[in-house]
Amino acid sequence: MPTWRDNVRKVVPYVPGEQPNKKDVIKLNTNENPYPPAPGVKKALDSFDYETLRKYPDPKCSKLVSAIASYYGLSEDQVFVGVGSDDVLAMSFLTFFNSGKPVLFPDITYSFYDVWADMLRIPYRQVPLNNRFHVDPDDYIGDCGGIVIPNPNAPTGIAEKMDTYEKILDGHPGVVVIIDEAYVDFGAESVLPLIDKYDNLLVVQTFSKSRAMAGSRIGFAMGSPELIKYLSDVKFSFNSYTMDRVTIDLGTAALSDRKYFEEGVNKIIRTREWTKKKLKDLGFEFGDSVSNFIFARHEGVSASDLFEWLKSEGIYVRYFDKPRISDYLRITIGTDEEMEIFIEKVKTYLTMHGIG
Amino acid sequence: MPTWRDNVRKVVPYVPGEQPNKKDVIKLNTNENPYPPAPGVKKALDSFDYETLRKYPDPKCSKLVSAIASYYGLSEDQVFVGVGSDDVLAMSFLTFFNSGKPVLFPDITYSFYDVWADMLRIPYRQVPLNNRFHVDPDDYIGDCGGIVIPNPNAPTGIAEKMDTYEKILDGHPGVVVIIDEAYVDFGAESVLPLIDKYDNLLVVQTFSKSRAMAGSRIGFAMGSPELIKYLSDVKFSFNSYTMDRVTIDLGTAALSDRKYFEEGVNKIIRTREWTKKKLKDLGFEFGDSVSNFIFARHEGVSASDLFEWLKSEGIYVRYFDKPRISDYLRITIGTDEEMEIFIEKVKTYLTMHGIG
Repeated sequence: MPTWRDNVRKVVPYVPGEQPNKKDVIKLNTNENPYPPAPGVKKALDSFDYETLRKYPDPKCSKLVSAIASYYGLSEDQVFVGVGSDDVLAMSFLTFFNSGKPVLFPDITYSFYDVWADMLRIPYRQVPLNNRFHVDPDDYIGDCGGIVIPNPNAPTGIAEKMDTYEKILDGHPGVVVIIDEAYVDFGAESVLPLIDKYDNLLVVQTFSKSRAMAGSRIGFAMGSPELIKYLSDVKFSFNSYTMDRVTIDLGTAALSDRKYFEEGVNKIIRTREWTKKKLKDLGFEFGDSVSNFIFARHEGVSASDLFEWLKSEGIYVRYFDKPRISDYLRITIGTDEEMEIFIEKVKTYLTMHGIG
Repeated sequence: MPTWRDNVRKVVPYVPGEQPNKKDVIKLNTNENPYPPAPGVKKALDSFDYETLRKYPDPKCSKLVSAIASYYGLSEDQVFVGVGSDDVLAMSFLTFFNSGKPVLFPDITYSFYDVWADMLRIPYRQVPLNNRFHVDPDDYIGDCGGIVIPNPNAPTGIAEKMDTYEKILDGHPGVVVIIDEAYVDFGAESVLPLIDKYDNLLVVQTFSKSRAMAGSRIGFAMGSPELIKYLSDVKFSFNSYTMDRVTIDLGTAALSDRKYFEEGVNKIIRTREWTKKKLKDLGFEFGDSVSNFIFARHEGVSASDLFEWLKSEGIYVRYFDKPRISDYLRITIGTDEEMEIFIEKVKTYLTMHGIG
């Protein structure tokens, strides 16, 4: 006899990185920013009038949209905001990938792409990165239902030159191409200037990493007014009021302090380069990360063993038990002090195992 | 030549009630609560540490889920939370209504149901309310892909007796039945006790109305652990971190003050009953609303004319240009003072037009 269970959309959900409850943990596992949000965010929080919570927020989030547009030199109709870039990306999959043809994304990439595709019954094909973990535009030639590539890619941290993305765009005027720039502020070149040339290019960014506001859930997309309009229509057909009043205010405040933002990003870049040097000295290999994490392996070390041992020592990094990357660890860049402790711990592990 | 536009999910989005920017407006158009959230919400806001925003929120919103479960005497695996009840309902449509058979809901009801169904390509059939705007369970007999009914219904404000919903549930063990209780706290009887008897019953509620937190975006669903598990899996496949850190804290705080909540609801009920009496004296007709709004018409008055005139006088109510209800206005219950001004204005209008 048929039951209601027969018609449930059954999925294997995305598993986010652990959020340990323990104190005194060094958390290098979810690419969070080790520094607080801009001081203006605190001011905005302090001056927020809780009585206004009785009223719905502005469904268009105009204040925040306008601040983003002005920050990036765009017009407001080129900006879409959502509850984190995951929300923006999920809405984009729902809006743009309806051809029935496979959507293309790298085989090693953000682990949510195949989850969204599976959940929304969108066919997809994973295009292998080359053996140095780079995107080769020639691999993307041919008919498809859309393309999603992170710039820089995750979990590799590697970015491509602008002309790689341009080649892909030139080959695909008939589908929407999403460039997911969650980590772009840490050293990659944004493809944002290309949105004026390609009306099918959607650039997605987030406040979760470089703006240290993962806890606020703010993501945004930039593209041609036509793309943004279609995306907004679907969003308004899903949930009119996604972003709460407090978050709209805090996000707007965060954008008003360009100096704090740039200094914070530069601190993380310096710490990343220091960590790269130390890891190299210890015999680790990794691509040229321009993000706030390093994706590294060591010939003499089992990544999963090191991952478990670090965890037992109170240091959380990320391990993916997946083809091609199961000997790698993804290490988020924390404060200088955290990275010094991390490096010391890794040294201890290597010594314990007679390596190095 | 095919373009990317060919594969866009094109939709006619839901249009939320106006959010006028003007000051000194009496806003009786979006069923907001005229009173502020519980004082504990202010305390939670004041003590929120903005530095924690750098970290992702708890994806399971455990603190809030636990507070809701404890408030309603449930276990945590019977509770799901989302970004407003619209988010919960959209996720539920996506999760449960995949049979290809039409989903049933009243012809006069929350105007988002057909928007979700259209957007998600779910077939549906609108079941006419009877001529007194009540739900007749006999009209729901027969094969279908699921059922959604608000208790009380919107925009009528009318609730049914428990046995109406039980009859519908008894007739449909093979599909998920959603009872949307956005307005239940203003005088209707919740079907929540039925979730132990029917594992296919999902009860959806919100903090936007009775808890005066529309600006925070908190909705929740209660049902059997199996239903909740399926819904959570889809949510985690759409967006792992939907609710921001501030909102989780504020929502949890709101639940700790049962007395403030009950007093607030009772104030609104008293004002509603006063408003009903006044409207009746002025010749308006309406069903027995047990919500925080009244859905009323007047034989001698064009609803759309009155709507426009009230707006020009700074009073916003809601008008739906739809079959069967185009001679009605939906009037949210504001403060006593707001409702007195509203009644006076309506009197003026009637006098101007030689009525009453």
